[in-house]
Amino acid sequence: MSGASDRLCVVLVDARNPLNIGAGARAMSNFGFLQLRVVNPYDVAFREARSAVGAASLLTNAEEFKSVAESVADCTLVVGTTAVRHRELQHPLRRLEYGARLIRKELATGRVALVFGPEKTGLSNDDLSYCHWLMNIPTREQHISMNLGQAVAVCLYELVRDTKKATSEKKEKVERRATAGEVERISDGLLEALHLSGYVKPIAVTSTEERVRRIVRRMNLSSKDAELWLGMLRQMLWKIRTGDQKK
Amino acid sequence: MSGASDRLCVVLVDARNPLNIGAGARAMSNFGFLQLRVVNPYDVAFREARSAVGAASLLTNAEEFKSVAESVADCTLVVGTTAVRHRELQHPLRRLEYGARLIRKELATGRVALVFGPEKTGLSNDDLSYCHWLMNIPTREQHISMNLGQAVAVCLYELVRDTKKATSEKKEKVERRATAGEVERISDGLLEALHLSGYVKPIAVTSTEERVRRIVRRMNLSSKDAELWLGMLRQMLWKIRTGDQKK
Repeated sequence: MSGASDRLCVVLVDARNPLNIGAGARAMSNFGFLQLRVVNPYDVAFREARSAVGAASLLTNAEEFKSVAESVADCTLVVGTTAVRHRELQHPLRRLEYGARLIRKELATGRVALVFGPEKTGLSNDDLSYCHWLMNIPTREQHISMNLGQAVAVCLYELVRDTKKATSEKKEKVERRATAGEVERISDGLLEALHLSGYVKPIAVTSTEERVRRIVRRMNLSSKDAELWLGMLRQMLWKIRTGDQKK
Repeated sequence: MSGASDRLCVVLVDARNPLNIGAGARAMSNFGFLQLRVVNPYDVAFREARSAVGAASLLTNAEEFKSVAESVADCTLVVGTTAVRHRELQHPLRRLEYGARLIRKELATGRVALVFGPEKTGLSNDDLSYCHWLMNIPTREQHISMNLGQAVAVCLYELVRDTKKATSEKKEKVERRATAGEVERISDGLLEALHLSGYVKPIAVTSTEERVRRIVRRMNLSSKDAELWLGMLRQMLWKIRTGDQKK
């Protein structure tokens, strides 16, 4: 997304609370989108927003506009965000999962504006008229309206999320599995301890031993953990044997 | 996810700022996860958090615990969230996209705790020792640490997002496309207007007409829009003809 991420502008329209602008800026910085545009912020001091941890330079560089039209003038795609679902919308309304896909596609060559409205009311019909289409976050019907900073975070996350990472986990450090021999030493140690402890009844020796072997294998141990287990077992065995000798 | 979503507990450990607890609660309510557990909140008045718009009952019902161990005791899977990447972690670390998939799977039958640490420091090694594995949000290397409320929102969004919705858009209202006849009437009207305006040069009539037909088809009009365009063209044509008559 580098290069492409420079072509996404987050546009905050009439944001009332500078803390929300700061929170939006922080999420932008977290996800690598650094182009912030604000239209008529209610507080001119928004650049000092305390909630913008780590995003001060992004706020300093934010561009200010008098109108939505000016703020999106250089964009090839303008997407409005909305919580509304049932109002008669004049625009196509797309769920974030699908909308983000279209935005990513457009970002390959064009500049995209992602427009967020004021906290209480959302984007006005006039604001919406500058949008090609609208996007909503799949919140539940009983509570659709999100906090502005959280809505920005969720939308930008969807833009950077990597579908391939959901199915494979290449980067995960793979611990070497324990060998069958290592596992068997644990079974042996455990069984010996169980025998010495009187857990294994004479008439059920074979079935108990089989059960123990299966249970040890289901532990699905790494080589490292197998070593630890063996150490613990040895110690317990030593204790059990010592106790026997004292009797 | 209903039923399953009741089996996810969001656990906030040592949260310092009640506003962050409130923001977390709001995101939980937005995405339909209503089980909040707090471990040692710094402010006992967190239940009145102002940022919990629409999530007051969720805060009222939040369970308080003295330790992480107690807070996750009834869970079959405990996942810690962390921004850390390079520290020598004793746990498998999974990206949110993949981790959420494992969590959804577990939620089909078990209870899952999703654990978030305090704002400044994140989860301690002791807290982490109660986790089966860790999960991180794919923020950029230069600014990995997210605001607590935003991190909760992004994690829960990933849990409810619908992969199928990213590829198909069944619910989108499909406008009926304009028929070839409707489109051709627009081409005709436009061409007539262009002829009357002197745009079409006599030596290039055929090629211009073809170009206009193609450009009108590329508009990919809905039937409704075709009607609008036709009305606009007719009006312009009337004006052009009227002007001609006055000469």
